[in-house]
Amino acid sequence: MSAIPEDFLSQKAKVDEQSVQPFPNSRKVYVEGSMPGVRVPMREISLADTSTELGGEKNSPVYVYDTSGPYTDPEVTIDVRKGLEPMRDEWTDRRGDTEKLTGLSSDYGNARRDNDNLDHLRFDHKRTPIRAKAGKNVSQLYYARQGIITEEMEYIAIRENMKLEDARAQGLLDPQHPGQSYGASIPKEITPEFVRDEVARGRAVIPANINHPEVEPMIIGRNFLVKINANIGNSALGSSIEEEVEKMTWSTRWGGDTVMDLSTGKNIHETREWIIRNSPVPIGTVPIYQALEKVNGVAEDLTWEIFKDTLIEQAEQGVDYFTIHAGLRLHHVPLTAKRVTGIVSRGGSIMAKWCLAHHQENFLYTHFEEICEIMTAYDVTFSLGDGLRPGSIADANDEAQFGELETLGELTKVAWKYDAQVLIEGPGHVPMHMIKENMDKQIEVCGEAPFYTLGPLTTDIAPGYDHITSGIGAAMIGWYGTAMLCYVTPKEHLGLPNKDDVKEGIITYKIAAHAADLAKGHPGAQIRDDAMSKARFEFRWTDQFALALDPDRAMAYHDETMPKEAHKVAHFCSMCGPKFCSMKISQEVREYANKNGFEKIPVVEAGSAEDVMRKGMEEKSAEFKDAGSEIYSKA
Amino acid sequence: MSAIPEDFLSQKAKVDEQSVQPFPNSRKVYVEGSMPGVRVPMREISLADTSTELGGEKNSPVYVYDTSGPYTDPEVTIDVRKGLEPMRDEWTDRRGDTEKLTGLSSDYGNARRDNDNLDHLRFDHKRTPIRAKAGKNVSQLYYARQGIITEEMEYIAIRENMKLEDARAQGLLDPQHPGQSYGASIPKEITPEFVRDEVARGRAVIPANINHPEVEPMIIGRNFLVKINANIGNSALGSSIEEEVEKMTWSTRWGGDTVMDLSTGKNIHETREWIIRNSPVPIGTVPIYQALEKVNGVAEDLTWEIFKDTLIEQAEQGVDYFTIHAGLRLHHVPLTAKRVTGIVSRGGSIMAKWCLAHHQENFLYTHFEEICEIMTAYDVTFSLGDGLRPGSIADANDEAQFGELETLGELTKVAWKYDAQVLIEGPGHVPMHMIKENMDKQIEVCGEAPFYTLGPLTTDIAPGYDHITSGIGAAMIGWYGTAMLCYVTPKEHLGLPNKDDVKEGIITYKIAAHAADLAKGHPGAQIRDDAMSKARFEFRWTDQFALALDPDRAMAYHDETMPKEAHKVAHFCSMCGPKFCSMKISQEVREYANKNGFEKIPVVEAGSAEDVMRKGMEEKSAEFKDAGSEIYSKA
Repeated sequence: MSAIPEDFLSQKAKVDEQSVQPFPNSRKVYVEGSMPGVRVPMREISLADTSTELGGEKNSPVYVYDTSGPYTDPEVTIDVRKGLEPMRDEWTDRRGDTEKLTGLSSDYGNARRDNDNLDHLRFDHKRTPIRAKAGKNVSQLYYARQGIITEEMEYIAIRENMKLEDARAQGLLDPQHPGQSYGASIPKEITPEFVRDEVARGRAVIPANINHPEVEPMIIGRNFLVKINANIGNSALGSSIEEEVEKMTWSTRWGGDTVMDLSTGKNIHETREWIIRNSPVPIGTVPIYQALEKVNGVAEDLTWEIFKDTLIEQAEQGVDYFTIHAGLRLHHVPLTAKRVTGIVSRGGSIMAKWCLAHHQENFLYTHFEEICEIMTAYDVTFSLGDGLRPGSIADANDEAQFGELETLGELTKVAWKYDAQVLIEGPGHVPMHMIKENMDKQIEVCGEAPFYTLGPLTTDIAPGYDHITSGIGAAMIGWYGTAMLCYVTPKEHLGLPNKDDVKEGIITYKIAAHAADLAKGHPGAQIRDDAMSKARFEFRWTDQFALALDPDRAMAYHDETMPKEAHKVAHFCSMCGPKFCSMKISQEVREYANKNGFEKIPVVEAGSAEDVMRKGMEEKSAEFKDAGSEIYSKA
Repeated sequence: MSAIPEDFLSQKAKVDEQSVQPFPNSRKVYVEGSMPGVRVPMREISLADTSTELGGEKNSPVYVYDTSGPYTDPEVTIDVRKGLEPMRDEWTDRRGDTEKLTGLSSDYGNARRDNDNLDHLRFDHKRTPIRAKAGKNVSQLYYARQGIITEEMEYIAIRENMKLEDARAQGLLDPQHPGQSYGASIPKEITPEFVRDEVARGRAVIPANINHPEVEPMIIGRNFLVKINANIGNSALGSSIEEEVEKMTWSTRWGGDTVMDLSTGKNIHETREWIIRNSPVPIGTVPIYQALEKVNGVAEDLTWEIFKDTLIEQAEQGVDYFTIHAGLRLHHVPLTAKRVTGIVSRGGSIMAKWCLAHHQENFLYTHFEEICEIMTAYDVTFSLGDGLRPGSIADANDEAQFGELETLGELTKVAWKYDAQVLIEGPGHVPMHMIKENMDKQIEVCGEAPFYTLGPLTTDIAPGYDHITSGIGAAMIGWYGTAMLCYVTPKEHLGLPNKDDVKEGIITYKIAAHAADLAKGHPGAQIRDDAMSKARFEFRWTDQFALALDPDRAMAYHDETMPKEAHKVAHFCSMCGPKFCSMKISQEVREYANKNGFEKIPVVEAGSAEDVMRKGMEEKSAEFKDAGSEIYSKA
C-alpha cells in the first residue's frame, strides 16, 4: 500500500514490455498530409485470402484507428526517460504567436523543481514551457474562427477518415446500414475544412495544449467517431509512478483516446510529468485534486490563488484538458440534501464543502473569466465538471443535476466568448429510460458543445461488474450523441483499478463506442465488422484474432480447447464440434445450391400454414406406411 | 477433449460444493400460498443498522428473487443421485387428468434403458413418466383458458411479487422512477388471477412439463420480471455429465431462470436425465440436435418419425420447453444466399440442408399440428426457433430473418388453437438502432407471445467479450419488451464455455434483465438498487457485498487493496483514499448543513453568470490585496 516503491529511480525507468508488442498480422502505416510534418498513423491489418474451396478471393486489408502512438512502431526506439518526439513544436513555432518562457510561471512548479529530494524520481526536463504571446490566443477554436486550418485539423481529418475513400472505391461500404443519428450531421467524408467548421461552431474540440507537443491530434465531437477516456492515477493508498506510466501506455495500446490522470496521492506533479512526456494521447486532469493536496486535504482552506497557481503549473506541463467544477453553485448544494447518495463527484463534494464553509459562491464560478484567459494562453480545453452527477439510480436526472447542467450551459457561452474550447461532463447512474433526456437537455442548454459522460451505470446492484452496468448506458448515450465516453472499470466503487482492470474497462468502452458508431451510421464503421464476419464464415481463425478488439484474449480463449496449429484452419470450434457447426452446414447449403440452383425454389409464399400442414400430414402418413413403419431404418 | 472421463460412475456423483455455499447475510425464507403445497422460496438479505453517527436507523431486509432452489437451503440435504423432491406431483395428481404410463413410449428411450453398458452413468430412474389422459390437455394455457388458477399460477404470483406489499407499506417504493414500458401492462401487484389471465392470452408462458415435478414454477412474459436463460451442454469436443450438472447448479445459483441443455456430444439422453432430476428451473432443449445424432450427423437422413420419437423421449424425461425450427421454410433458404454469414443457427442450418436435399417443405412445419398434440400431452412449451437469425451486423433485420418471423407468427396461432404454450425466439447480431424494429415486429406478427432473444450482439468485432457486446443489446431489447434473454458467454464464437464463463454470462445477463426491469418501471425493481446505494453512502461494506449480484467478486475486489476487518467499516476505499472520498465529504456537507441549516441559502437563481463573476472578481481581488498577496499562507 505504499505509494512509491523506495527504489523508483528515474534513471532506471523503462517502458512496459507488454505495451510495445506488435499486434498480430498488423503493421503501422502513415498517411502523409499536405502540410509539413503531418504524418498520420494507422494500423493496417492484413487478411488472408479466402480458401480456394470457398472461392479463393483476396481480402482487402482493414485500417483501424490507432491510439497506441509510437509504442507499436518497430521503427521507433522508445525510451521513457527521454519521452516521445515533440512533433507539434514545429507547427506551433510556424504560427509565431507563442513565446518561450524563461522558466516556470507557477510558484509550486518552481518549488518542486528546486527540491533536490525529488531528483531521483524526476523526469529529466529539457523543455522550457511556451505560452501565447501577450494579447494572442492559441486555441484551436480561435484559429478555426479565423478560418485557419491548422496542422492539427488536417491530421485529424486524415485520421478520422481512415482511408475511407479507398474502402469506398473497393465497395467495402456497400451495403452498410444507414443508422439513426438523432440529428447529428456526419458527412460522407471528413475534410480538414469540416474539422475546422465543427471546431469553430464549438461542436467539437481538439484537446492539444501547446506544451504537449508529443500528442497525436484527435477530435471529440458528435459528428466524429465516438471516443473513450481512461482514468488512471494513484491514490494515497496505492500505486507508483511506474505503474501509472504503465497504465497510460497500456490504455493507449487498447484504444484509450484520452487519459485522465486523477492522481491524489504522493508526488502528483512528478507523476504527471512522466505521463505527459510519454503520452501520444491528450491528458486530462482535475486540478482541484492537487490544489486540495496543497492545503493538506482541508477543503475550506482552498483559495482561488492556490487553484490558479495549480492551473498554470499544470498548463505549463502540458495538460490538454482540465475538469473544472465551476457549475456547482452555492444555491445548488441544498438540492442534494434529500439525495440517496448526496454528492459523488470528488471535485463536486470539495467545492460544495468550500461553498458552505464560506457561505460564498464557488470561486471557480466567480473567477471563471480569469480561468478562460489561462486556458486560451496554452490551449487547455475546458471539461466543465458535473459535480452533481447522480451517484445512484434514485438520484438520476434530479433538480440538482439538471440545475448544474444549466449553469454549465451558461459557462459554455462565457468560455466561447474567450474562444476557449469546451467539453461538458455528464451522467453517472441513470436507468436506461432516462438516458436520452440527459443528452437532449445537454444539446439544448449547452449549444451542442461535446458531451463527455461517465457511463452511465444503468443499475446500482453489480459492484465488480460496473464496466458492464455502465457499458450498456455508455453505448446508448454514445448513440444518442455523446462525443466521448469515460470508462468505468470492474473495480469501480471497490478499489483502485490495476492494469488488468484498466484493460477490461477500455475494451468494454471500445465496444460501447463502436456500437454507437454503427448505430449512428458513421461511414465505414461497419467495415471491420464485415471483415470479421466474413473471416468467421470462412473459418479464417487467425484473421478473426487479428481483427478482434483484443486479439490476445480471442486467441487464448480459442486455444484453451483447440490449441494446435491445425485447429487454426479447422471448420468448427469446440462450442459445437465438427458435425454441429452451423457455419459449416451453411456452407454446404450454399455449395449444394451453387451446384443445383436455388432458382428452382419459389421465393413466394407457398401456401398458408394450415394448407401445407394438412397436405404434408397426408403425404407423410402414406410414405410412413409404405416404408413399413420402421423408424430407425437408416440409423 | 474426451467427452466422458472413464471413471464417471453414477454411484459416486456428488453435488458441486461451490453451489451449496450460503450467500452472505442471507437466509432462505418461504412464503406459503393458499393452495396446499405452495411454498415459495425467496432470499432474504439482512442489513445492518445505519451507524449511530449517521442517524442509527434500522434498514429493512431486502427480498430477492431466488432461482437457486434447495441448494442454498441448509435445511435440505442434497443428493444428486436422488434428485430433488418432486413437489409438483401432488398438484398434478389432484387435477386427475393424467395417467401413469407403464413404461417409456419412445423407442430410443427404451433402447437406452435396456443397454447395460450405460448402467455406470445412468441416473437411477425411480419415476414412471406421466401423460395426459386420452382427450385431455394438461397445458397451463388450457387451464388458464378454462378459468382455472393452478398451483403453479399462485406460486408464480407470490414469487413475482417478492413481498411487494410489505415493501410498499414500509415506503420502500416511494419514490421510484415510473419507467417507460412501451405499452406493457405491468400491474401494481401480481395476483394469481393476473397470472392466469396473461397465460390465457398467450402473453406469458409457464414452462413446466408434468414430468418435471422438481421445477419451481416461473413465468416468462412481458408484464413480469425479465428472465434470463443459460445455455449449457457438451459437444463432441468437450465436457462430461458431471461438468454439465455442475454448470446447471452453478447457473441457477447465480440467477439463471431457465437452463437449456444443448448437448450434442456423447450420452446426451443420460446427461439430460441427470440435469432434469436435479434442476429447480425449467430445462429447454433443441430436440433436432439429438435427432441428428441418431442419424449419425447426416441431416438428409432425418425423418419426421425419428424426430417425433425424440420429442416423446425428451417430453417423458421432463424437458419443459423445446426449440422447434418449424418457421424455416423451403422458400426462405434462397434468401440467405447473399448473406455475409449465411445461416448461423445450428437447428436452422440442419433444417435448411434437409429441405434442400429433399426439395421439400420443412417437416417440422408440415407436421406442426402433430407436434402440438405431443406438446399439450406433457405440457411442453414451444420455443419457436429462429433458424434464420442474423449472425452478423450485416445480416440484421433482413428478408430471411423477418420472413421466418412472420411464419412464426402463423405457427403461434396454430399452436394456440391447440392450447399449446408458445415462446418466440429472436435476435442474434443487430446494431442498436435496429433492435427496436425486431421487438415491434415480433409483437405485431406474433400476437404478443413472449419474445425470447439471444443478445442481440451489437457489434461483431469483440470475440472474447461477446457477453458484453450482447449484454448491451439484451438490456435494450428487454426494456423494449423481450420477456427472456438468452445469455451469451465470453467464449461465444471461440469455444465451449466452462464454469467461469457460465457465471460471467449469467451475471452480465442479470444486469441486463434488471436494467430492463428498472427502465420498464417494474414495481419494486428499484428496492435493491436503493438499498445498495444507501449502504454505499453509509459505508456499510458488508451490506454492499451481500446486496451485490456477485458478493464473492465484490468482496474479493474490495479486499485486494483493503483486506483487513477494520476496512469493512472504513469511510473510504483505495480508489480515492480517505481525503478524497466524495461520499465522506458529502456526509460532512450534510452534517454541516444540519448544524447550520441549508435554509440560509437561497434556492433561487442568484444572478446571471456574468454579474456574479464580475462582482466576484472585484471582491476577491480586494481580499487578495488585503492579505498581502501570499498564495501559500495556509499551506
